[in-house]
Amino acid sequence: MTSGAESSLAAVVRTSQGEYRAIVGRGVTASIGAEFELAGLGKRAFLVADQAVFPEAVRTVQEALERAGVVTHVLTLPSGERTKSLQTLEQIYSWLAGLRGERGDTIVALGGGVIGDIAGFAAATWLRGVAFVQVPTSLASMVDASLGGKVAANLPMGKNLVGAFHQPKLVLSDVDFLKTLPAREMAAGWAEAIKHGLILDPELLEAFESEADVLMALEGEQVVEVIRRSVAIKAEIVSADEFERGDVRVLLNYGHTVGHAIEAVTDYGEYLHGEAVSVGMMAAALIAERLGMIDAELVDRQRAVLERYGLPVSAPGLSVEAIMDRAKSDKKVRGGVIRWVLLEGPGKAVTRSDVPDELVAGVIADLVAR
Amino acid sequence: MTSGAESSLAAVVRTSQGEYRAIVGRGVTASIGAEFELAGLGKRAFLVADQAVFPEAVRTVQEALERAGVVTHVLTLPSGERTKSLQTLEQIYSWLAGLRGERGDTIVALGGGVIGDIAGFAAATWLRGVAFVQVPTSLASMVDASLGGKVAANLPMGKNLVGAFHQPKLVLSDVDFLKTLPAREMAAGWAEAIKHGLILDPELLEAFESEADVLMALEGEQVVEVIRRSVAIKAEIVSADEFERGDVRVLLNYGHTVGHAIEAVTDYGEYLHGEAVSVGMMAAALIAERLGMIDAELVDRQRAVLERYGLPVSAPGLSVEAIMDRAKSDKKVRGGVIRWVLLEGPGKAVTRSDVPDELVAGVIADLVAR
Repeated sequence: MTSGAESSLAAVVRTSQGEYRAIVGRGVTASIGAEFELAGLGKRAFLVADQAVFPEAVRTVQEALERAGVVTHVLTLPSGERTKSLQTLEQIYSWLAGLRGERGDTIVALGGGVIGDIAGFAAATWLRGVAFVQVPTSLASMVDASLGGKVAANLPMGKNLVGAFHQPKLVLSDVDFLKTLPAREMAAGWAEAIKHGLILDPELLEAFESEADVLMALEGEQVVEVIRRSVAIKAEIVSADEFERGDVRVLLNYGHTVGHAIEAVTDYGEYLHGEAVSVGMMAAALIAERLGMIDAELVDRQRAVLERYGLPVSAPGLSVEAIMDRAKSDKKVRGGVIRWVLLEGPGKAVTRSDVPDELVAGVIADLVAR
Repeated sequence: MTSGAESSLAAVVRTSQGEYRAIVGRGVTASIGAEFELAGLGKRAFLVADQAVFPEAVRTVQEALERAGVVTHVLTLPSGERTKSLQTLEQIYSWLAGLRGERGDTIVALGGGVIGDIAGFAAATWLRGVAFVQVPTSLASMVDASLGGKVAANLPMGKNLVGAFHQPKLVLSDVDFLKTLPAREMAAGWAEAIKHGLILDPELLEAFESEADVLMALEGEQVVEVIRRSVAIKAEIVSADEFERGDVRVLLNYGHTVGHAIEAVTDYGEYLHGEAVSVGMMAAALIAERLGMIDAELVDRQRAVLERYGLPVSAPGLSVEAIMDRAKSDKKVRGGVIRWVLLEGPGKAVTRSDVPDELVAGVIADLVAR
């Protein structure tokens, strides 16, 4: 079932902390031992797993590591955003301290974005930083969260308010994990992959439009190729702008300003991240249309592809004021001015800091109308 | 009272996160506004101050910043090691979140090593990292902790178990702060400065021996020069080996293996860090002597200079077993083997990983004998 290692290689990500391989394929978890060696990692691993990952999958990873001579300890954590807290961080620290984790050890995250973020934050800070490996099990994490080294925890006052840039030494995405992913979570993952097409790759966008059925069925090589392509786009962006200081990485935030706000005003309990981003991308598209940057046709096209993948394109019943207020407290805000990521065309995004509040409020009012 | 900026410059520290200036002089806090500008820092600062720092001193820093147009918020924290906790970290995060701290803002630490470490950890992780400035008020922090970007918090299971490498944008050491420092804390600071002489600079060591009276009186330019020289040594080391991956930075840990263990077995309540390091340096010197690396004369010379500055050179009554056990759980330990920093001569340190446990236990037994 395992593809050859090189044909599974989606990208080599270049960072200030060294290069790392992003692998995408079916059954590739079996090769984690060889990848560990290739990455020069040590002989002890601390595997932080999402409770939602089937015990057999956890065992598969653990056994593949042990076969390669890597002693592997396992900690399972509850699923869900609540796990991404300072309390969980403390729990991971205590586990590591109890087992006398050393500097040469590796922390492995097995799960979705929540597990990757909190285990990654622990890896960034335990003994001032140890090696980190991502084995994402959700589509959203495969195409987005697992790449680029952003790790974080939530505070009661906001999501991802604390964290670090801590690059993994390896990201291993086994597409077979997706077979058991709930439909809503799959859709949320597609939102981020479609986003990559919208902001940077018109061909990828077209593939999502024309091959929806076969992609959603998760069968064959086509879905693997599309995920690999999406990973390659994200890898290219984070290699070019590791710390989001330039004008490149910020483009990945397309749909995220309003998306984050929607998640926040619904207390992170109603919308999955990708679902909120989907609505946020609709907000951005409508803003761009009203600014005369794109025509109604592209807005309709974006709406159609998002709906096709089961994603929401409006947020009926939410408060315009609450969303506006949260959008302005987003951590990307500089001096109170929101930096919007907007489309100029299919596969072409730019940033704009001159969007009037009233225009935004008008767009949001339309999106929340019942 | 302010010296000219350039004559106060002790070093320019080169790091992967850019260069920064280390300033040492009398009354230099008054120039913090100009230094902020030189470092390209933003117009909002979050000043985290030790409660032990006189309110006038806090006001001096705040006013100097505000004069330069930098809006400055102040949070004061209790003195002492207990403040270096995850709970304090959470408190700083809440303060920043409440005031909507942004990415362009700067966190300034005004205090000793505890404040620098915990405020620096907050700066390393708040919004995945914001600018950080150190204004050390203790001698130990001036010559050691404030430089090199090591920031940390303690866990119940051990000191400095979590943290980051987060380089400051500026370190401003005002020697006038030392006038009000308690004698024991001054001595603890001298321990680190003398250490710099012992491991790397025979001339500095000689200055400590021949000028003890005038240095301890804190009068005149000589003490400023000695501190500046000590800062320059540390700056050189951390510039050469930022992440302690080479064989250079580890030399700064001279006396720290046993020093940390002594602090731990006394629950961080009996020995100041520098005092424990002083005893730890005696352990290292005796180990080196028994290994035939140095002669008894250098051991005596080290003992004499430490005692001259009011530092302990033994730890009567402590348990050999407890110290040995803690030394082996130090985070510098690799695969259970302790990497010792030992002298080969005055101003010349090396690492050795082949020291037999029995030899170490024998040395510690001598140091704890009543």
